[in-house]
Amino acid sequence: MAAEIVVIEGDGIGKEVVPAAVEVLEAFDSDFEFVEADAGDATKAATGEALPAETFEAAASADATLFGAAGETAADVILPLREAVESFVNVRPATAYPGVDALRPETDVVFLRENTEGVYSGHEDRLSDDLSTLTRVVTSSASRELAEFACEFVADGRGPNGDADEGFTVVHKANVMRETDGRFREEVLSVADEHDVDADEELMDAFATKLPLDPGQYGVVVCPNLAGDVLSDLAAGLVGGLGLLPSANIGHDNALFEPVHGTAPDIAGEGIANPTAAVLSAALLLEYLGHVEEGQRVRDAVTGVLSDGPRTGDLGGEATTDEVTAAIVDRL
Amino acid sequence: MAAEIVVIEGDGIGKEVVPAAVEVLEAFDSDFEFVEADAGDATKAATGEALPAETFEAAASADATLFGAAGETAADVILPLREAVESFVNVRPATAYPGVDALRPETDVVFLRENTEGVYSGHEDRLSDDLSTLTRVVTSSASRELAEFACEFVADGRGPNGDADEGFTVVHKANVMRETDGRFREEVLSVADEHDVDADEELMDAFATKLPLDPGQYGVVVCPNLAGDVLSDLAAGLVGGLGLLPSANIGHDNALFEPVHGTAPDIAGEGIANPTAAVLSAALLLEYLGHVEEGQRVRDAVTGVLSDGPRTGDLGGEATTDEVTAAIVDRL
Ligand SMILES: CC(C)[C@H](C(=O)O)[C@@H](O)C(=O)O
Ligand SMILES: CC(C)[C@H](C(=O)O)[C@@H](O)C(=O)O
Repeated sequence: MAAEIVVIEGDGIGKEVVPAAVEVLEAFDSDFEFVEADAGDATKAATGEALPAETFEAAASADATLFGAAGETAADVILPLREAVESFVNVRPATAYPGVDALRPETDVVFLRENTEGVYSGHEDRLSDDLSTLTRVVTSSASRELAEFACEFVADGRGPNGDADEGFTVVHKANVMRETDGRFREEVLSVADEHDVDADEELMDAFATKLPLDPGQYGVVVCPNLAGDVLSDLAAGLVGGLGLLPSANIGHDNALFEPVHGTAPDIAGEGIANPTAAVLSAALLLEYLGHVEEGQRVRDAVTGVLSDGPRTGDLGGEATTDEVTAAIVDRL
Repeated sequence: MAAEIVVIEGDGIGKEVVPAAVEVLEAFDSDFEFVEADAGDATKAATGEALPAETFEAAASADATLFGAAGETAADVILPLREAVESFVNVRPATAYPGVDALRPETDVVFLRENTEGVYSGHEDRLSDDLSTLTRVVTSSASRELAEFACEFVADGRGPNGDADEGFTVVHKANVMRETDGRFREEVLSVADEHDVDADEELMDAFATKLPLDPGQYGVVVCPNLAGDVLSDLAAGLVGGLGLLPSANIGHDNALFEPVHGTAPDIAGEGIANPTAAVLSAALLLEYLGHVEEGQRVRDAVTGVLSDGPRTGDLGGEATTDEVTAAIVDRL
């Protein structure tokens, strides 16, 4: 049966890089059915809603969704979409590619970010004219589910160095958030122990010092929602920016794939956006749908183009989105 | 009248670097009265309490406190000590020094970190076997107080480039924490506006990408408590590690000064710890007590020693703590 893939371009360069990623997916004769849906600033301007109910429903009932970027409305689009696919983990690989100018070329880290709770709970209150609160939520069930995923991820050799024995590092701030991150830490470490997976731990602030100083010491990093947001973006700075980083929001029988970058309003509409992050997101989608070998072929093609193919302006080249996409498709 | 300075060495290299900082303070014939007090792991082992009431009281009633580091009990010591001096802002300069190997030598940023609330509120609950919560607190009063301090700091030319017109950057995650960081953001920007201070803003995750890519674009950075913790430690990684970074916890008529580093158990007791961060903390203490010129002399002496004086092992040298301290005192 055809896999149904919802395609949401969104705003800005989303309209350029998502078609590029779809072109790459179409290069395989996999039996995909693409369904277009709308979301983002322009959708809000036209319909009053950044994420119309039809788009939410489409994503919720599809096999997978590929999303580009949204502008001002990013949080209104992406957070509900993660819920639509019931994602519990956000997979964010940060790899420095050969030939790409990177502050820390030895960076090769995969963040496994908790994707449902923490400060993203959505529970905030204005208790007085002076005081507002947010309820940060941590459950054992979500922490264990993330940790189970991490153990399987490592055991399957999907970590950066492919070594099933490499284990993972859990990052938290349990010295201050003793009850909530204490629970997170304890559950993650105990799941690792049950699965005989090596797990180190690091405080969030210490990790932020050490990652730029010596990224080579980390492989798979498991963390709460906001820590994963901030620390994976830090890793993006070490590999040369957001233009290269894909992400996968994985649920139980659905998933959402998105480049980590935004709408890049400064270059949107010019046809010169770097399609790499979107194409690598498509590679993650292929793997998620069981096309593991095809996913790897896409990654190899991207790596080849990054090292000696045409480049977009963000990487010092002058190629257009179309030229880079064609070069990737050529190498498949 | 003599200024009373409480001195808490704490654990590990705290016992080596704090005496070095006191030696530097004693080199001026300022009228200081030093009062020793205990805190940390060893104190807990001996008395059952990491921060005995006498130490809390001593810090609360002193003119200023100089603290070294604590081991496992760090949070039990440092968080109450910040309360003892009623600190509302944690000032954390991150400067790359000439002659020190730094990933980003152009880094010169001062973090002004909110020091009383956010996820440091201490309100956590275990609501069920599965679920724990933390109440993140943001008040307009604390946000405005921080912003008032930031405006004065900038106006006094105390930012990295000394330019009263440079303004500051407020970092937050108001796209997700709409009510709490929304309040923080709005109050900080409105205070800046009232004082005619230029204020930019940046999302916390975007800041984590951009700081390593281009630290030169930032000067004074104003942020909530946890963001300040993590992002200032990130900056530490860019200037060559925690060994050089001082901090000041400023209150209304009291303050606490501490190096950003920890107890460094691997080298503790050997007399080879780098005293720079503690000595620079003493420089901040001098300035806080009105000895602005002396503070600057200490900073100049440290800069001189870092660029062509003896160095401790963390900076590739072989000098002892005492030798580096003597070289600093020599240059005063
Ligand atoms: C847009 C925003 C809500 C989102 C997040 O904080 O998760 C983004 O930063 C990301 O990391 O995908
Ligand atoms: C020890 C810990 C509680 C503390 C903090 O989180 O504030 C430390 O990391 C710091 O930055 O001084």
